[in-house]
Amino acid sequence: MSGTAQIGVTGLAVMGRNLARNFAHNGFTVAVHNRTTAKTDALVEDFGDEGAFVAAHTPQEFVAALERPRRLVIMVKAGEPTDAVIQQFVPLLDDGDVVIDGGNAHFEDTRRREKELRERGIHFVGAGISGGEEGALNGPSIMPGGSAESYASLGPMLERIAAKAKDGTPCTTHIGPDGAGHFVKMVHNGIEYADMQLIAEAYDLLRAVAGYSPAKIAETFRSWNTGRLDSYLIEITAEVLAHTDAATGRPFVDIVQDRAEQKGTGRWTVQIALDLGVPVSGIAEAVFARSLSGHADLREAAKGLSGPSAAPLGAQEAAAFADRVEQALYASKIVSYTQGFHQIRAGSEAYDWNVDLGAVASIWRAGCIIRAAFLDRIRSAYATRPELLSLLSDAQFAEEIGAAQDDWRAVVAEAVRQGVPTPGFAAALSYYDGLRADRLPAALTQGQRDFFGAHTYRRVDREGSFHTLWGGDRTETEAG
Amino acid sequence: MSGTAQIGVTGLAVMGRNLARNFAHNGFTVAVHNRTTAKTDALVEDFGDEGAFVAAHTPQEFVAALERPRRLVIMVKAGEPTDAVIQQFVPLLDDGDVVIDGGNAHFEDTRRREKELRERGIHFVGAGISGGEEGALNGPSIMPGGSAESYASLGPMLERIAAKAKDGTPCTTHIGPDGAGHFVKMVHNGIEYADMQLIAEAYDLLRAVAGYSPAKIAETFRSWNTGRLDSYLIEITAEVLAHTDAATGRPFVDIVQDRAEQKGTGRWTVQIALDLGVPVSGIAEAVFARSLSGHADLREAAKGLSGPSAAPLGAQEAAAFADRVEQALYASKIVSYTQGFHQIRAGSEAYDWNVDLGAVASIWRAGCIIRAAFLDRIRSAYATRPELLSLLSDAQFAEEIGAAQDDWRAVVAEAVRQGVPTPGFAAALSYYDGLRADRLPAALTQGQRDFFGAHTYRRVDREGSFHTLWGGDRTETEAG
Repeated sequence: MSGTAQIGVTGLAVMGRNLARNFAHNGFTVAVHNRTTAKTDALVEDFGDEGAFVAAHTPQEFVAALERPRRLVIMVKAGEPTDAVIQQFVPLLDDGDVVIDGGNAHFEDTRRREKELRERGIHFVGAGISGGEEGALNGPSIMPGGSAESYASLGPMLERIAAKAKDGTPCTTHIGPDGAGHFVKMVHNGIEYADMQLIAEAYDLLRAVAGYSPAKIAETFRSWNTGRLDSYLIEITAEVLAHTDAATGRPFVDIVQDRAEQKGTGRWTVQIALDLGVPVSGIAEAVFARSLSGHADLREAAKGLSGPSAAPLGAQEAAAFADRVEQALYASKIVSYTQGFHQIRAGSEAYDWNVDLGAVASIWRAGCIIRAAFLDRIRSAYATRPELLSLLSDAQFAEEIGAAQDDWRAVVAEAVRQGVPTPGFAAALSYYDGLRADRLPAALTQGQRDFFGAHTYRRVDREGSFHTLWGGDRTETEAG
Repeated sequence: MSGTAQIGVTGLAVMGRNLARNFAHNGFTVAVHNRTTAKTDALVEDFGDEGAFVAAHTPQEFVAALERPRRLVIMVKAGEPTDAVIQQFVPLLDDGDVVIDGGNAHFEDTRRREKELRERGIHFVGAGISGGEEGALNGPSIMPGGSAESYASLGPMLERIAAKAKDGTPCTTHIGPDGAGHFVKMVHNGIEYADMQLIAEAYDLLRAVAGYSPAKIAETFRSWNTGRLDSYLIEITAEVLAHTDAATGRPFVDIVQDRAEQKGTGRWTVQIALDLGVPVSGIAEAVFARSLSGHADLREAAKGLSGPSAAPLGAQEAAAFADRVEQALYASKIVSYTQGFHQIRAGSEAYDWNVDLGAVASIWRAGCIIRAAFLDRIRSAYATRPELLSLLSDAQFAEEIGAAQDDWRAVVAEAVRQGVPTPGFAAALSYYDGLRADRLPAALTQGQRDFFGAHTYRRVDREGSFHTLWGGDRTETEAG
């Protein structure tokens, strides 16, 4: 049996519903299915005139509605719900069908599922989708993993519904085998955490050190958004800061509780980076800043701790300081992306994915939350040197960060003096200074480790591993 | 059948051998066993005159040599080797026997093993042991988890072989059920990473900013070691820095490659802290600093990055700067321990372990790598207020860190200006300033999340969750 729908979407919460509508808007016939059939009917009732939908009330109807080889997108919660839906559909599918998981799955789960389905002849595509509800409807950035064969069948459809960069390039590409898509989406979210934290620090500094009002900071962000920081997150930050709470007449940002929440992908990014040995201190500090903010009890208990007291700057000094904050934000952002792209490269090497880093930057240029002019710069850096080890090795980024560093240092020093927490700016600067250091004190660390644990060390002037008899006559022995 | 040995040790690499000798020195009859029997024979041959050993050449002989209920310590590599040995011995054991894993197991593995063995009537004790080879021989700090019943049988023996604090208290106690012991040992190691990183940063600053030689820095550390920083790690740092490489006549620290290695417990600490929602930025930066130092390719590629150029300080300024570094190191150390003890508290709550934080501080006072006068201060803080939420809420620590903060800020600002990476000092300061902040920019983060993902926010003036219709007329809706 074979139906007429070119694609199916099961799981019709807002993301699934919007994705189905996006496919329909682009001329595809879309089979839609939901566990509770009311949602399926509501979709067709509310949006049926937007395109060709086939409402399916049972898994059997859903599968029958799809043309062969079938392509079905699962849009349910990550974890067990995803496994349950896969188990429900797999017995109904045939060789060569393509199952797409559009949720925020952990890439290790995606690797497992891809393997299980591959053994049954079914293509499994773990596809990260960024852009929120609005992106799902009007064009997200899509990061599909899985077999090249599945992308041959699915890719052209994804390219139709994806966002388009300014040069017209669709914001989707075949990321790589098995878990590559969800891995890259995970790092996208980690970078998003870092971007948001850096923006929060910039705001905090402008408020506390420059003495700016939220409205004035909104204005400042709007002006930054016309330059190299041009990005969706800067744009919406200005919107949030300009907003006045109707109930109180106060700036909106002042009536919101200052406890940030999180859903897990930032945490995963850091945990996986630790496994891969990639320093992602900027992302880690962003995750920690959120959890710190949420510990109301600890914060209450810390109320009595003393800090410096410093007056806000005068108006002229404040304007100059704001310019320096823009430099610090930009420099820290370069470091965040350097760390994130390092992690993707490390993941790609560890799992043999052969991810094209320039292509990743390219498909993040539109549709996703971190979309920004900046991403085109990264795309261009990898286009110039595909073998680029680190974004900081790119001549232009190196030059820009070099030009920004005096202001960056001044901002962090001022924050430290005035007691404004800038974990993100400071971690980024430490990373920069650590990477460019001729010698790191890690030599001392190795000496300590050899002293208390006989862990051995390497010498700068000879091959081999060595141990000093610290408890004895302190001669050096070769440790094989 | 029942033997005469009160304790058995299987796995006779250096840690196991030294632990067996330690038991023997304390008057216990010790059965010893190793997969390759040569090691067993060598132990008895080399150290047989130190006490009562029973050499066992097979698992059966080993088990037969033990008095009932049996107590046997497994000293093999963490992971599969530990499981293999457990599987080998379990069929030979009886109800009420006690199996102790003295390796660096992941606490989740310990939880699993404890459960499996409990179901077979056997007590499983995951015991973290710190102090390296020397500690194992002469008195380590021992962190046993498991049932209270197992501690009743085992505890008095562990108390005999453990290190003793200055007041005579043995450095071991019943930490809590199942994985509690290995969890606490993991956090011990995480704190050890942070301690070592902070010391490395202090050294780097004294060298680069104060212009001190390694010998002069050794002298500085020796003098610090007579004060509140009195600790094993400061002591051995001075030894390492004072050491001259015989081959070249150069300071030892200068002939060691500056690439720090790691074995995994620091990484675990951060990964688990992320799961528990505990900000452990100081430990994370320490782990990242090690991995950064190891990326020779990235560091080589970063050689061209520009930094500030600043001359070392003059002699008088240098001495004053060194004093400030001591303050910064001490303040950062308070933060590291605050974070580590927060993690233990959070783990204890998550797994229902009821860990006594003051007792943990007490048994870290001697024997282990982080042993220090400081730990007695922490013990005392919890003795005064067992319900203490955070070390920073202790009046004395709060006062000390308050007194140190001006110097701490000056040191971080100077490091930032001079381009010396101080990720540990800076992260600790950001944590301090974050915790004591009246308002954090997390409110902006929540506003952004509500804007792009409808994640909702809470208000400072009303209960409930709210969402602003950002894409519409920007009215506020109650989100249930």
